[in-house]
Amino acid sequence: MPGIQSTLYEKFYPAVPPRSMSPLNAFLSGLIIACSFVVVLETEPTIVGPNQQVFVLLDCLFACVFIIEYFVRLWVIGCDPRYSGFLGRLKYVVTPMAVIDLLSIVPFFFVAFSNNFFLLRVARLFRMISLAKFSRYSRAMTEFADVINSRKSELLLSLGIVLAVLLLASAVMYEVEGVAQPEAFGSIPRALWWGVMTLTTVGYGDVTPHTILGKFCCGATAIAGVGLIAMPTGIVAAAFSETFARMREQNFDDE
Amino acid sequence: MPGIQSTLYEKFYPAVPPRSMSPLNAFLSGLIIACSFVVVLETEPTIVGPNQQVFVLLDCLFACVFIIEYFVRLWVIGCDPRYSGFLGRLKYVVTPMAVIDLLSIVPFFFVAFSNNFFLLRVARLFRMISLAKFSRYSRAMTEFADVINSRKSELLLSLGIVLAVLLLASAVMYEVEGVAQPEAFGSIPRALWWGVMTLTTVGYGDVTPHTILGKFCCGATAIAGVGLIAMPTGIVAAAFSETFARMREQNFDDE
Amino acid sequence: MPGIQSTLYEKFYPAVPPRSMSPLNAFLSGLIIACSFVVVLETEPTIVGPNQQVFVLLDCLFACVFIIEYFVRLWVIGCDPRYSGFLGRLKYVVTPMAVIDLLSIVPFFFVAFSNNFFLLRVARLFRMISLAKFSRYSRAMTEFADVINSRKSELLLSLGIVLAVLLLASAVMYEVEGVAQPEAFGSIPRALWWGVMTLTTVGYGDVTPHTILGKFCCGATAIAGVGLIAMPTGIVAAAFSETFARMREQNFDDE
Amino acid sequence: MPGIQSTLYEKFYPAVPPRSMSPLNAFLSGLIIACSFVVVLETEPTIVGPNQQVFVLLDCLFACVFIIEYFVRLWVIGCDPRYSGFLGRLKYVVTPMAVIDLLSIVPFFFVAFSNNFFLLRVARLFRMISLAKFSRYSRAMTEFADVINSRKSELLLSLGIVLAVLLLASAVMYEVEGVAQPEAFGSIPRALWWGVMTLTTVGYGDVTPHTILGKFCCGATAIAGVGLIAMPTGIVAAAFSETFARMREQNFDDE
Repeated sequence: MPGIQSTLYEKFYPAVPPRSMSPLNAFLSGLIIACSFVVVLETEPTIVGPNQQVFVLLDCLFACVFIIEYFVRLWVIGCDPRYSGFLGRLKYVVTPMAVIDLLSIVPFFFVAFSNNFFLLRVARLFRMISLAKFSRYSRAMTEFADVINSRKSELLLSLGIVLAVLLLASAVMYEVEGVAQPEAFGSIPRALWWGVMTLTTVGYGDVTPHTILGKFCCGATAIAGVGLIAMPTGIVAAAFSETFARMREQNFDDE
Repeated sequence: MPGIQSTLYEKFYPAVPPRSMSPLNAFLSGLIIACSFVVVLETEPTIVGPNQQVFVLLDCLFACVFIIEYFVRLWVIGCDPRYSGFLGRLKYVVTPMAVIDLLSIVPFFFVAFSNNFFLLRVARLFRMISLAKFSRYSRAMTEFADVINSRKSELLLSLGIVLAVLLLASAVMYEVEGVAQPEAFGSIPRALWWGVMTLTTVGYGDVTPHTILGKFCCGATAIAGVGLIAMPTGIVAAAFSETFARMREQNFDDE
Repeated sequence: MPGIQSTLYEKFYPAVPPRSMSPLNAFLSGLIIACSFVVVLETEPTIVGPNQQVFVLLDCLFACVFIIEYFVRLWVIGCDPRYSGFLGRLKYVVTPMAVIDLLSIVPFFFVAFSNNFFLLRVARLFRMISLAKFSRYSRAMTEFADVINSRKSELLLSLGIVLAVLLLASAVMYEVEGVAQPEAFGSIPRALWWGVMTLTTVGYGDVTPHTILGKFCCGATAIAGVGLIAMPTGIVAAAFSETFARMREQNFDDE
Repeated sequence: MPGIQSTLYEKFYPAVPPRSMSPLNAFLSGLIIACSFVVVLETEPTIVGPNQQVFVLLDCLFACVFIIEYFVRLWVIGCDPRYSGFLGRLKYVVTPMAVIDLLSIVPFFFVAFSNNFFLLRVARLFRMISLAKFSRYSRAMTEFADVINSRKSELLLSLGIVLAVLLLASAVMYEVEGVAQPEAFGSIPRALWWGVMTLTTVGYGDVTPHTILGKFCCGATAIAGVGLIAMPTGIVAAAFSETFARMREQNFDDE
């Protein structure tokens, strides 16, 4: 048995991250995408209706594979000295990755053994979590997160500035348009809906200012929005520039 | 008393800006956010209506704390040699920070002792100023402002170019669509509303060109808008790149 | 004949890519643009209607020139040692460029000898392929593609993140707004339409949330959208920065 | 007289571009802004109506000053050895700057001596040209233009790619939605309006796809639009990065 265990361990957790995935991991990745796709389709009555049994079958299939995957991982993880033995297994079970794996299994039981409508809805949403299992396979994702993390304080600050400007613009608009359109601008919380749609340049157009002063303030907010969008973009661009430059320097040093 | 004064001074103005805030400053920051939140909610009649007394109480509470804070700061600032003595206190009172502190207290008195509807509205808006008190706590904000400031002339110029293109696009649209839609494009000031919504890519869609030539000009404006948005974003990105590169160099020199 | 062949070969494929195009290539480039323009106009009944014969004539003209071009290229390519002889010609015929050339001729025959409405529609679309012939003339395009290619994995990853956030936002919105607006948010696939319009900040406004919780989630999605847009922009900016820096270094080395 | 001429020449064309403008140039800059403002207001009947005489007066005033400025410039330019003498003056008159100066005067005569409605409209538009006179005063503008110029070929190429994708998306949408919405997607030129509004992420929402396939293609176009917007932004950011880096190096060399 230890032979099978260590062989499987290497298949699940290749020692040196290779260029391409191991066949097992590629299969599991494909399964995650397929499962998410099925979860999405299951919410559309016109698709599920005539194919109820196909979807029930697919649900059971995904559940079985993910449950088996969970227990096999729990078994083979023993090859990792950090998680060997019973206590090691307990330590593994509470790692974020194992929790995500568990959370993406649980909903299957709800769907299978419950008739509560609300629980079913929540369970369905929870199954989207399986997408988070992806992060296991992606080394690029980790590098990506590092870049964003290295400038976290600047990005959070620019989010804070956006929120402050949003509040200010909504407060001004509430004063200016509140009397003309009490439904849409009658209070700051109401004006926030207009504010966020304008500052992010989404612009649904369901709420627009009617007074001249309101239009002027709205135009100023839109221009400010462009400037605010420039901030996170600029920070991310600079962070990637830095990372790429560091990579290049390391390559020079290696030669 | 001097012992308490200098102890409080250190709590309010830590000598070496530490990684995390002092408990006092963290408490005051939380209070500013809570106060802004209450000001925002107070404008919504459906929320204030049934809880009138709660909000009056909260208003008084915030007023008391901010008034006490103001006078305590005025007292302890004497430990700073620049602001010690009566003349030093006067010098402190006119610093931007002290003015902001004062301005965020004044509205409480208006709300408490006035029945004038218009004054109340303005007072409410003024209380949003307390958000500006935040800048005191944020060293990152200062660095941020430095980055933007270092490229101020380029950013102002790109704003100027945006305004010039906005004027030009509106003038062209006024000529092209003015006859078909006199309400929306009957003069350049009216066409400006369309112009700012299109150039900033917000696109509410409440005003759209109807003629073929108008649609063509509108499309050209939208594409120009994308180009114009690229300018501030590019400038900010380059400014952050420069700042990050300078930081790295300084780190190298320190080693 | 070999003299004409090699002369034509040089006209079609100048040895050293010069600053400006050879007159022959400039003529062919102009023809591609003209042909695309005619294809676009041909779909508008109010333009084709009164000028049917002009467009038939233009179609024949473009067909003749492109067919002649194809066979002349096939002949002169023999001067290239890689494609000389009959087997070399076969090898040339399956190169992407030759396939594009062929694909942009084929539709003419469909249009000429078929009355099938559906085939005609498809054929018309296929003729747009002639635009891809352009890439032959553009050395800058190749450099451009290199820049994008060098950061392909980062760009694909950011596309993946956008799709994952899109799925998540749509799933949340389906739970939140699904009961209030079953037509627009009654399933995740339906909510995706709202999601993509909001995350990309296009914001048509044909589908907007009506509940307060829905508006809150929509605002959060719009702000997340701005952050997500910052990622590809930042990556592209960093990639171009790197390329421009490398170019400058090479120029220094040359001196 | 030569004394006055050379004194005025120095006022108009300061030898070393100083930090701040000369008083004369500051006055002329202010006049250009005021004139543009008046031109904009003049198109709004509700503003001009009751103040007809004020605007006629202002028009005359601006006309006089700009005409005097033109002839004074023509006189003092003789101090520049390149433009001295009668032939030098002729050479000056055809420089872009002198042509812009002349073009911004001409409309005054049309407005004064013509009753033709169409001519008046065009004349009004022409007077916006006075804004272009600004470029004379702005050294920063020149630096700005240099940055954009240095990456002109990349920016033009990205514009070309945007136009090609726009054409392709419109062609696909014409095939997909043309039958369902002949008014909006019945031909490629009609679909272009949808295309440009979606690719630039403006999103008026006056034209939206109704079929499922159409919505899918529209979503893909919107995502592609975000990617396309990243290109010019990235190029501009990289160009500014390069320029700022070069500036810094020059400063190092100067020390």
